[in-house]
Amino acid sequence: MSYRTFTEALKELNLALPAVNQPRGSYVPAAKAGDLFFIAGQAPRVNGELKFSGRVGRDLSIDQGREAKQICASNVLSHLAYATGDDPSKVVAAVRLAGVVNSAEDFTAHSQVLDAASDLIAKVLGSAGQHARIATGASSLPSGMAVEIEAIFQLE
Amino acid sequence: MSYRTFTEALKELNLALPAVNQPRGSYVPAAKAGDLFFIAGQAPRVNGELKFSGRVGRDLSIDQGREAKQICASNVLSHLAYATGDDPSKVVAAVRLAGVVNSAEDFTAHSQVLDAASDLIAKVLGSAGQHARIATGASSLPSGMAVEIEAIFQLE
Amino acid sequence: MSYRTFTEALKELNLALPAVNQPRGSYVPAAKAGDLFFIAGQAPRVNGELKFSGRVGRDLSIDQGREAKQICASNVLSHLAYATGDDPSKVVAAVRLAGVVNSAEDFTAHSQVLDAASDLIAKVLGSAGQHARIATGASSLPSGMAVEIEAIFQLE
Repeated sequence: MSYRTFTEALKELNLALPAVNQPRGSYVPAAKAGDLFFIAGQAPRVNGELKFSGRVGRDLSIDQGREAKQICASNVLSHLAYATGDDPSKVVAAVRLAGVVNSAEDFTAHSQVLDAASDLIAKVLGSAGQHARIATGASSLPSGMAVEIEAIFQLE
Repeated sequence: MSYRTFTEALKELNLALPAVNQPRGSYVPAAKAGDLFFIAGQAPRVNGELKFSGRVGRDLSIDQGREAKQICASNVLSHLAYATGDDPSKVVAAVRLAGVVNSAEDFTAHSQVLDAASDLIAKVLGSAGQHARIATGASSLPSGMAVEIEAIFQLE
Repeated sequence: MSYRTFTEALKELNLALPAVNQPRGSYVPAAKAGDLFFIAGQAPRVNGELKFSGRVGRDLSIDQGREAKQICASNVLSHLAYATGDDPSKVVAAVRLAGVVNSAEDFTAHSQVLDAASDLIAKVLGSAGQHARIATGASSLPSGMAVEIEAIFQLE
Protein backbone atom coordinates (compact mmCIF):
# COMPACT_ATOMS: atom_id res chain seq x y z
CA MET A 1 0.00 0.00 0.00
CA SER A 2 1.13 3.49 -0.75
CA TYR A 3 2.06 6.07 1.88
CA ARG A 4 1.25 9.03 -0.41
CA THR A 5 -1.96 11.00 -0.53
CA PHE A 6 -4.42 10.37 -3.34
CA THR A 7 -3.62 13.87 -4.58
CA GLU A 8 0.11 13.13 -4.78
CA ALA A 9 -0.41 9.72 -6.32
CA LEU A 10 -2.49 11.18 -9.14
CA LYS A 11 -0.07 14.07 -9.63
CA GLU A 12 2.73 11.56 -10.22
CA LEU A 13 0.58 10.16 -13.04
CA ASN A 14 0.03 13.68 -14.42
CA LEU A 15 -3.58 13.56 -13.31
CA ALA A 16 -5.48 15.84 -10.94
CA LEU A 17 -7.69 14.54 -8.15
CA PRO A 18 -11.08 15.79 -9.32
CA ALA A 19 -13.55 17.61 -7.11
CA VAL A 20 -16.18 15.23 -5.75
CA ASN A 21 -19.09 15.14 -8.19
CA GLN A 22 -22.47 15.67 -6.62
CA PRO A 23 -25.19 13.08 -7.31
CA ARG A 24 -27.64 14.07 -10.04
CA GLY A 25 -30.65 12.58 -8.31
CA SER A 26 -32.14 11.56 -4.97
CA TYR A 27 -29.18 9.59 -3.68
CA VAL A 28 -25.86 10.01 -1.92
CA PRO A 29 -22.44 9.63 -3.56
CA ALA A 30 -21.35 6.85 -1.21
CA ALA A 31 -22.65 4.82 1.72
CA LYS A 32 -20.78 2.94 4.44
CA ALA A 33 -22.01 -0.30 6.01
CA GLY A 34 -19.56 -1.67 8.55
CA ASP A 35 -16.18 -1.44 6.83
CA LEU A 36 -17.65 -1.69 3.35
CA PHE A 37 -17.80 1.54 1.37
CA PHE A 38 -20.28 1.52 -1.52
CA ILE A 39 -19.59 4.19 -4.14
CA ALA A 40 -22.50 5.19 -6.39
CA GLY A 41 -22.26 4.95 -10.17
CA GLN A 42 -19.60 7.36 -11.41
CA ALA A 43 -19.87 9.13 -14.74
CA PRO A 44 -17.06 10.49 -16.94
CA ARG A 45 -17.70 13.98 -15.55
CA VAL A 46 -15.14 16.60 -14.55
CA ASN A 47 -16.47 19.42 -12.39
CA GLY A 48 -19.95 18.25 -13.26
CA GLU A 49 -19.45 18.42 -17.01
CA LEU A 50 -19.98 15.21 -18.98
CA LYS A 51 -16.81 14.61 -21.03
CA PHE A 52 -17.86 11.54 -23.02
CA SER A 53 -21.33 10.67 -24.24
CA GLY A 54 -22.52 8.25 -26.90
CA ARG A 55 -21.73 4.63 -27.69
CA VAL A 56 -18.27 3.13 -27.58
CA GLY A 57 -17.64 1.25 -30.82
CA ARG A 58 -19.97 3.52 -32.78
CA ASP A 59 -19.65 7.17 -31.68
CA LEU A 60 -16.45 6.73 -29.68
CA SER A 61 -13.26 4.74 -30.20
CA ILE A 62 -11.87 2.23 -27.74
CA ASP A 63 -9.22 4.79 -26.74
CA GLN A 64 -11.91 7.37 -26.03
CA GLY A 65 -13.79 4.77 -24.02
CA ARG A 66 -10.62 4.11 -22.03
CA GLU A 67 -10.14 7.82 -21.40
CA ALA A 68 -13.74 8.04 -20.19
CA LYS A 69 -13.25 5.05 -17.88
CA GLN A 70 -10.14 6.66 -16.43
CA ILE A 71 -12.20 9.74 -15.55
CA CYS A 72 -14.79 7.52 -13.85
CA ALA A 73 -11.97 5.87 -11.88
CA SER A 74 -10.53 9.22 -10.84
CA ASN A 75 -14.01 10.14 -9.58
CA VAL A 76 -14.08 6.89 -7.60
CA LEU A 77 -10.74 7.92 -6.11
CA SER A 78 -12.09 11.39 -5.26
CA HIS A 79 -14.80 9.78 -3.10
CA LEU A 80 -12.19 7.57 -1.43
CA ALA A 81 -10.01 10.64 -0.79
CA TYR A 82 -12.96 12.48 0.71
CA ALA A 83 -13.87 9.55 2.97
CA THR A 84 -10.31 8.87 4.15
CA GLY A 85 -8.94 12.41 4.53
CA ASP A 86 -6.84 11.89 1.38
CA ASP A 87 -5.08 8.91 2.95
CA PRO A 88 -4.79 5.80 0.73
CA SER A 89 -3.40 3.77 3.63
CA LYS A 90 -6.91 3.70 5.10
CA VAL A 91 -8.10 1.62 2.16
CA VAL A 92 -7.83 -2.04 3.17
CA ALA A 93 -8.86 -3.36 -0.22
CA ALA A 94 -10.67 -2.58 -3.39
CA VAL A 95 -13.29 -5.30 -3.51
CA ARG A 96 -15.56 -5.01 -6.53
CA LEU A 97 -15.72 -2.86 -9.62
CA ALA A 98 -18.72 -2.98 -11.93
CA GLY A 99 -18.08 -1.35 -15.27
CA VAL A 100 -20.79 -0.60 -17.78
CA VAL A 101 -20.12 0.42 -21.36
CA ASN A 102 -22.74 2.23 -23.43
CA SER A 103 -21.82 0.22 -26.47
CA ALA A 104 -22.53 -0.61 -30.06
CA GLU A 105 -24.41 -3.89 -30.47
CA ASP A 106 -21.38 -5.68 -31.89
CA PHE A 107 -18.97 -4.33 -29.27
CA THR A 108 -16.79 -6.93 -27.54
CA ALA A 109 -13.79 -4.96 -26.13
CA HIS A 110 -15.34 -4.18 -22.72
CA SER A 111 -12.34 -5.57 -20.84
CA GLN A 112 -9.88 -3.41 -22.77
CA VAL A 113 -11.95 -0.34 -21.94
CA LEU A 114 -12.39 -1.23 -18.27
CA ASP A 115 -8.70 -1.96 -17.81
CA ALA A 116 -8.07 1.80 -17.97
CA ALA A 117 -10.07 2.17 -14.76
CA SER A 118 -8.70 -0.92 -13.05
CA ASP A 119 -5.11 0.02 -13.89
CA LEU A 120 -5.48 3.53 -12.45
CA ILE A 121 -6.93 2.21 -9.20
CA ALA A 122 -4.14 -0.38 -8.92
CA LYS A 123 -1.44 2.23 -9.63
CA VAL A 124 -2.72 4.48 -6.87
CA LEU A 125 -3.52 1.82 -4.26
CA GLY A 126 -0.91 -0.83 -5.03
CA SER A 127 -1.82 -4.32 -3.82
CA ALA A 128 -4.83 -2.88 -1.96
CA GLY A 129 -6.18 -1.86 -5.37
CA GLN A 130 -6.76 -5.43 -6.56
CA HIS A 131 -10.45 -6.08 -7.17
CA ALA A 132 -12.98 -8.50 -8.62
CA ARG A 133 -14.81 -7.05 -11.60
CA ILE A 134 -17.82 -7.44 -13.81
CA ALA A 135 -18.08 -5.83 -17.23
CA THR A 136 -21.33 -5.45 -19.12
CA GLY A 137 -22.71 -3.49 -22.04
CA ALA A 138 -25.77 -1.28 -21.83
CA SER A 139 -28.07 -0.04 -24.57
CA SER A 140 -28.48 3.27 -22.71
CA LEU A 141 -27.01 5.07 -19.71
CA PRO A 142 -28.11 8.15 -17.72
CA SER A 143 -27.57 11.43 -19.60
CA GLY A 144 -26.18 9.42 -22.49
CA MET A 145 -22.87 8.93 -20.68
CA ALA A 146 -20.46 6.63 -22.52
CA VAL A 147 -19.36 4.57 -19.52
CA GLU A 148 -20.16 4.19 -15.84
CA ILE A 149 -18.37 2.63 -12.87
CA GLU A 150 -19.67 1.43 -9.52
CA ALA A 151 -17.32 0.28 -6.76
CA ILE A 152 -17.10 -1.34 -3.34
CA PHE A 153 -14.05 -0.80 -1.14
CA GLN A 154 -13.11 -2.05 2.30
CA LEU A 155 -11.89 0.76 4.58
CA GLU A 156 -10.21 0.66 7.96
CA MET B 1 -35.51 7.29 11.57
CA SER B 2 -39.21 6.87 11.74
CA TYR B 3 -41.11 5.25 14.62
CA ARG B 4 -44.05 4.23 12.42
CA THR B 5 -44.59 0.85 10.84
CA PHE B 6 -43.94 0.45 7.12
CA THR B 7 -47.68 -0.09 6.72
CA GLU B 8 -48.50 3.24 8.41
CA ALA B 9 -45.76 5.10 6.58
CA LEU B 10 -47.10 3.99 3.22
CA LYS B 11 -50.68 4.69 4.23
CA GLU B 12 -49.74 8.31 5.00
CA LEU B 13 -48.52 8.49 1.39
CA ASN B 14 -51.81 6.98 0.17
CA LEU B 15 -50.01 3.77 -0.75
CA ALA B 16 -50.58 0.22 0.45
CA LEU B 17 -47.78 -2.04 1.62
CA PRO B 18 -47.95 -4.76 -1.02
CA ALA B 19 -47.95 -8.47 -0.26
CA VAL B 20 -44.46 -9.93 -0.61
CA ASN B 21 -43.99 -11.09 -4.20
CA GLN B 22 -42.71 -14.62 -4.55
CA PRO B 23 -39.62 -15.19 -6.71
CA ARG B 24 -40.37 -16.39 -10.23
CA GLY B 25 -37.38 -18.74 -10.39
CA SER B 26 -34.95 -20.82 -8.35
CA TYR B 27 -33.96 -18.13 -5.87
CA VAL B 28 -35.08 -16.53 -2.62
CA PRO B 29 -36.53 -13.01 -2.31
CA ALA B 30 -33.80 -11.85 0.06
CA ALA B 31 -30.66 -13.12 1.77
CA LYS B 32 -28.91 -11.92 4.91
CA ALA B 33 -25.14 -11.99 5.42
CA GLY B 34 -24.13 -10.53 8.75
CA ASP B 35 -26.12 -7.32 9.03
CA LEU B 36 -26.38 -6.86 5.27
CA PHE B 37 -29.74 -7.66 3.72
CA PHE B 38 -29.64 -8.34 -0.02
CA ILE B 39 -33.02 -7.99 -1.74
CA ALA B 40 -33.46 -9.74 -5.08
CA GLY B 41 -34.44 -7.86 -8.22
CA GLN B 42 -37.94 -6.42 -7.74
CA ALA B 43 -40.37 -6.07 -10.62
CA PRO B 44 -43.28 -3.64 -10.98
CA ARG B 45 -45.69 -6.37 -9.88
CA VAL B 46 -48.67 -6.08 -7.53
CA ASN B 47 -50.01 -9.37 -6.16
CA GLY B 48 -47.91 -11.11 -8.77
CA GLU B 49 -49.36 -9.19 -11.72
CA LEU B 50 -46.94 -7.27 -13.89
CA LYS B 51 -48.21 -3.67 -14.06
CA PHE B 52 -45.71 -2.18 -16.51
CA SER B 53 -44.00 -3.92 -19.40
CA GLY B 54 -42.22 -2.56 -22.46
CA ARG B 55 -39.57 0.11 -22.98
CA VAL B 56 -39.55 3.44 -21.20
CA GLY B 57 -39.11 6.19 -23.79
CA ARG B 58 -40.79 4.14 -26.50
CA ASP B 59 -43.78 2.19 -25.14
CA LEU B 60 -44.01 4.02 -21.82
CA SER B 61 -43.63 7.64 -20.77
CA ILE B 62 -41.23 8.88 -18.13
CA ASP B 63 -44.18 9.27 -15.75
CA GLN B 64 -45.21 5.67 -16.34
CA GLY B 65 -41.61 4.62 -15.75
CA ARG B 66 -41.65 6.54 -12.47
CA GLU B 67 -44.89 4.87 -11.43
CA ALA B 68 -43.36 1.47 -12.24
CA LYS B 69 -40.26 2.31 -10.19
CA GLN B 70 -42.40 3.31 -7.26
CA ILE B 71 -44.07 -0.10 -7.35
CA CYS B 72 -40.64 -1.76 -7.37
CA ALA B 73 -39.67 0.36 -4.36
CA SER B 74 -42.84 -0.55 -2.48
CA ASN B 75 -41.96 -4.20 -3.13
CA VAL B 76 -38.49 -3.56 -1.70
CA LEU B 77 -40.22 -2.10 1.37
CA SER B 78 -42.51 -5.16 1.63
CA HIS B 79 -39.43 -7.38 1.99
CA LEU B 80 -37.99 -5.04 4.61
CA ALA B 81 -41.30 -5.07 6.47
CA TYR B 82 -41.36 -8.86 6.39
CA ALA B 83 -37.78 -9.12 7.66
CA THR B 84 -38.19 -6.54 10.45
CA GLY B 85 -41.68 -7.33 11.72
CA ASP B 86 -42.96 -4.14 10.04
CA ASP B 87 -40.55 -2.02 12.10
CA PRO B 88 -38.60 0.61 10.11
CA SER B 89 -36.50 1.42 13.19
CA LYS B 90 -34.64 -1.88 12.64
CA VAL B 91 -33.25 -0.56 9.37
CA VAL B 92 -29.86 0.96 10.12
CA ALA B 93 -29.31 2.24 6.60
CA ALA B 94 -30.24 1.81 3.01
CA VAL B 95 -26.90 1.13 1.37
CA ARG B 96 -27.19 0.51 -2.35
CA LEU B 97 -29.94 0.68 -4.93
CA ALA B 98 -29.37 -0.60 -8.46
CA GLY B 99 -32.03 0.53 -10.87
CA VAL B 100 -32.41 -0.86 -14.36
CA VAL B 101 -34.63 0.68 -17.01
CA ASN B 102 -35.83 -1.32 -20.00
CA SER B 103 -35.33 1.63 -22.27
CA ALA B 104 -35.40 2.99 -25.77
CA GLU B 105 -31.92 3.29 -27.31
CA ASP B 106 -31.92 7.09 -27.10
CA PHE B 107 -33.24 7.18 -23.52
CA THR B 108 -31.29 9.36 -21.10
CA ALA B 109 -33.72 10.15 -18.22
CA HIS B 110 -32.83 7.13 -16.05
CA SER B 111 -32.19 9.31 -13.00
CA GLN B 112 -35.57 11.01 -13.24
CA VAL B 113 -37.23 7.59 -13.38
CA LEU B 114 -35.19 6.14 -10.52
CA ASP B 115 -35.82 9.13 -8.28
CA ALA B 116 -39.40 7.90 -7.85
CA ALA B 117 -38.01 4.81 -6.09
CA SER B 118 -35.31 6.63 -4.14
CA ASP B 119 -37.74 9.30 -2.96
CA LEU B 120 -40.25 6.73 -1.69
CA ILE B 121 -37.59 4.87 0.28
CA ALA B 122 -36.29 8.12 1.77
CA LYS B 123 -39.81 9.27 2.72
CA VAL B 124 -40.48 6.04 4.59
CA LEU B 125 -37.08 5.60 6.24
CA GLY B 126 -35.96 9.19 6.72
CA SER B 127 -32.20 9.65 7.04
CA ALA B 128 -31.77 5.85 7.21
CA GLY B 129 -33.16 5.76 3.68
CA GLN B 130 -30.16 7.51 2.10
CA HIS B 131 -28.37 5.23 -0.37
CA ALA B 132 -25.74 5.04 -3.06
CA ARG B 133 -27.20 4.22 -6.45
CA ILE B 134 -26.37 3.01 -9.91
CA ALA B 135 -28.70 3.48 -12.86
CA THR B 136 -28.37 1.60 -16.11
CA GLY B 137 -30.41 0.84 -19.19
CA ALA B 138 -31.14 -2.67 -20.44
CA SER B 139 -32.17 -3.88 -23.85
CA SER B 140 -34.34 -6.56 -22.26
CA LEU B 141 -35.58 -7.55 -18.81
CA PRO B 142 -37.28 -10.70 -17.45
CA SER B 143 -40.93 -11.07 -18.56
CA GLY B 144 -40.54 -7.80 -20.46
CA MET B 145 -40.83 -5.78 -17.25
CA ALA B 146 -40.28 -2.05 -17.75
CA VAL B 147 -38.00 -1.48 -14.77
CA GLU B 148 -36.27 -3.48 -12.04
CA ILE B 149 -34.70 -2.61 -8.68
CA GLU B 150 -32.16 -4.47 -6.57
CA ALA B 151 -31.22 -3.27 -3.08
CA ILE B 152 -28.88 -3.77 -0.15
CA PHE B 153 -29.85 -2.61 3.32
CA GLN B 154 -28.09 -2.73 6.68
CA LEU B 155 -30.34 -4.10 9.44
CA GLU B 156 -29.90 -4.18 13.20
CA MET C 1 -25.06 -28.40 3.77
CA SER C 2 -23.21 -31.13 2.00
CA TYR C 3 -20.22 -32.99 3.44
CA ARG C 4 -18.83 -33.87 -0.02
CA THR C 5 -16.15 -32.00 -1.90
CA PHE C 6 -17.14 -29.73 -4.78
CA THR C 7 -15.39 -32.19 -7.08
CA GLU C 8 -17.48 -35.12 -5.83
CA ALA C 9 -20.69 -33.14 -5.86
CA LEU C 10 -20.22 -32.21 -9.50
CA LYS C 11 -19.15 -35.74 -10.43
CA GLU C 12 -22.47 -37.05 -9.05
CA LEU C 13 -24.15 -34.68 -11.49
CA ASN C 14 -21.94 -35.97 -14.34
CA LEU C 15 -20.09 -32.67 -14.41
CA ALA C 16 -16.41 -31.94 -13.91
CA LEU C 17 -15.14 -29.19 -11.63
CA PRO C 18 -13.48 -26.89 -14.17
CA ALA C 19 -10.01 -25.44 -13.77
CA VAL C 20 -10.16 -21.91 -12.38
CA ASN C 21 -10.38 -19.47 -15.29
CA GLN C 22 -7.87 -16.66 -15.17
CA PRO C 23 -9.19 -13.09 -15.49
CA ARG C 24 -8.90 -11.60 -18.96
CA GLY C 25 -8.02 -8.12 -17.75
CA SER C 26 -6.54 -6.11 -14.89
CA TYR C 27 -8.51 -7.67 -12.08
CA VAL C 28 -8.53 -10.67 -9.78
CA PRO C 29 -10.97 -13.61 -10.01
CA ALA C 30 -12.31 -13.07 -6.50
CA ALA C 31 -11.90 -10.75 -3.52
CA LYS C 32 -12.67 -11.31 0.15
CA ALA C 33 -13.89 -8.59 2.51
CA GLY C 34 -14.58 -9.92 5.98
CA ASP C 35 -16.56 -13.11 5.43
CA LEU C 36 -17.98 -11.94 2.11
CA PHE C 37 -16.44 -13.48 -0.98
CA PHE C 38 -17.00 -11.49 -4.19
CA ILE C 39 -16.53 -13.55 -7.37
CA ALA C 40 -15.82 -11.63 -10.57
CA GLY C 41 -18.03 -11.97 -13.64
CA GLN C 42 -17.81 -15.55 -14.92
CA ALA C 43 -18.06 -16.39 -18.60
CA PRO C 44 -19.20 -19.63 -20.22
CA ARG C 45 -15.56 -20.64 -20.70
CA VAL C 46 -13.98 -24.07 -20.20
CA ASN C 47 -10.19 -24.12 -19.95
CA GLY C 48 -10.22 -20.56 -21.22
CA GLU C 49 -12.22 -21.33 -24.35
CA LEU C 50 -15.49 -19.48 -24.84
CA LYS C 51 -18.20 -22.11 -25.39
CA PHE C 52 -21.19 -19.86 -26.11
CA SER C 53 -21.18 -16.49 -27.84
CA GLY C 54 -23.96 -14.47 -29.44
CA ARG C 55 -27.43 -13.50 -28.35
CA VAL C 56 -29.85 -15.81 -26.59
CA GLY C 57 -33.19 -15.67 -28.38
CA ARG C 58 -31.56 -14.86 -31.72
CA ASP C 59 -28.32 -16.81 -32.21
CA LEU C 60 -28.85 -19.26 -29.37
CA SER C 61 -31.86 -21.14 -28.03
CA ILE C 62 -33.07 -21.00 -24.44
CA ASP C 63 -31.59 -24.47 -23.89
CA GLN C 64 -28.21 -23.29 -25.16
CA GLY C 65 -28.47 -20.27 -22.89
CA ARG C 66 -29.17 -22.60 -19.98
CA GLU C 67 -26.16 -24.74 -20.86
CA ALA C 68 -24.01 -21.60 -21.00
CA LYS C 69 -25.32 -20.45 -17.61
CA GLN C 70 -24.52 -23.85 -16.12
CA ILE C 71 -20.91 -23.46 -17.28
CA CYS C 72 -20.78 -20.00 -15.66
CA ALA C 73 -22.11 -21.54 -12.43
CA SER C 74 -19.54 -24.34 -12.52
CA ASN C 75 -16.87 -21.64 -12.87
CA VAL C 76 -18.34 -19.89 -9.83
CA LEU C 77 -18.04 -23.22 -7.99
CA SER C 78 -14.41 -23.62 -9.13
CA HIS C 79 -13.53 -20.34 -7.41
CA LEU C 80 -15.36 -21.47 -4.27
CA ALA C 81 -13.51 -24.79 -4.37
CA TYR C 82 -10.19 -22.99 -4.73
CA ALA C 83 -10.96 -20.64 -1.82
CA THR C 84 -12.23 -23.36 0.52
CA GLY C 85 -9.85 -26.22 -0.24
CA ASP C 86 -12.65 -28.02 -2.11
CA ASP C 87 -14.81 -28.04 1.04
CA PRO C 88 -18.45 -26.97 0.53
CA SER C 89 -19.04 -27.01 4.29
CA LYS C 90 -17.00 -23.79 4.52
CA VAL C 91 -19.67 -21.96 2.54
CA VAL C 92 -22.07 -20.40 5.02
CA ALA C 93 -24.43 -19.08 2.38
CA ALA C 94 -24.76 -18.08 -1.21
CA VAL C 95 -25.93 -14.50 -0.95
CA ARG C 96 -26.39 -12.86 -4.33
CA LEU C 97 -26.25 -13.97 -7.94
CA ALA C 98 -26.39 -11.43 -10.75
CA GLY C 99 -27.08 -13.00 -14.10
CA VAL C 100 -26.76 -11.16 -17.38
CA VAL C 101 -28.06 -12.48 -20.68
CA ASN C 102 -26.73 -11.19 -23.99
CA SER C 103 -30.18 -11.23 -25.48
CA ALA C 104 -32.38 -10.46 -28.41
CA GLU C 105 -34.42 -7.29 -27.93
CA ASP C 106 -37.68 -9.18 -27.49
CA PHE C 107 -36.21 -11.74 -25.09
CA THR C 108 -38.14 -12.32 -21.88
CA ALA C 109 -37.05 -15.77 -20.60
CA HIS C 110 -34.10 -14.56 -18.48
CA SER C 111 -35.36 -16.40 -15.40
CA GLN C 112 -35.64 -19.70 -17.21
CA VAL C 113 -32.05 -19.32 -18.43
CA LEU C 114 -30.69 -18.26 -15.04
CA ASP C 115 -32.41 -21.11 -13.23
CA ALA C 116 -29.85 -23.46 -14.78
CA ALA C 117 -27.16 -21.66 -12.77
CA SER C 118 -29.19 -21.27 -9.59
CA ASP C 119 -30.25 -24.92 -9.64
CA LEU C 120 -26.68 -26.16 -10.02
CA ILE C 121 -25.48 -24.06 -7.10
CA ALA C 122 -28.39 -25.23 -4.94
CA LYS C 123 -27.78 -28.89 -5.85
CA VAL C 124 -24.14 -28.66 -4.81
CA LEU C 125 -24.55 -26.52 -1.68
CA GLY C 126 -27.97 -27.58 -0.45
CA SER C 127 -29.69 -25.05 1.78
CA ALA C 128 -26.49 -22.97 1.87
CA GLY C 129 -26.92 -22.48 -1.87
CA GLN C 130 -30.07 -20.35 -1.55
CA HIS C 131 -29.49 -16.85 -2.91
CA ALA C 132 -31.12 -13.59 -3.88
CA ARG C 133 -30.83 -12.90 -7.59
CA ILE C 134 -31.13 -10.22 -10.21
CA ALA C 135 -31.54 -10.99 -13.89
CA THR C 136 -30.98 -8.46 -16.64
CA GLY C 137 -30.43 -8.37 -20.38
CA ALA C 138 -27.46 -6.75 -22.05
CA SER C 139 -27.03 -5.51 -25.59
CA SER C 140 -23.38 -6.59 -25.52
CA LEU C 141 -21.01 -8.54 -23.26
CA PRO C 142 -17.21 -8.91 -23.18
CA SER C 143 -15.84 -11.06 -26.03
CA GLY C 144 -19.40 -11.52 -27.24
CA MET C 145 -20.11 -14.06 -24.50
CA ALA C 146 -23.74 -15.22 -24.39
CA VAL C 147 -24.20 -14.99 -20.63
CA GLU C 148 -22.31 -13.85 -17.55
CA ILE C 149 -22.68 -14.48 -13.81
CA GLU C 150 -21.39 -12.54 -10.83
CA ALA C 151 -21.76 -13.85 -7.28
CA ILE C 152 -21.34 -13.04 -3.61
CA PHE C 153 -20.96 -15.82 -1.04
CA GLN C 154 -20.52 -15.81 2.71
CA LEU C 155 -17.66 -18.06 3.84
CA GLU C 156 -16.62 -19.26 7.30
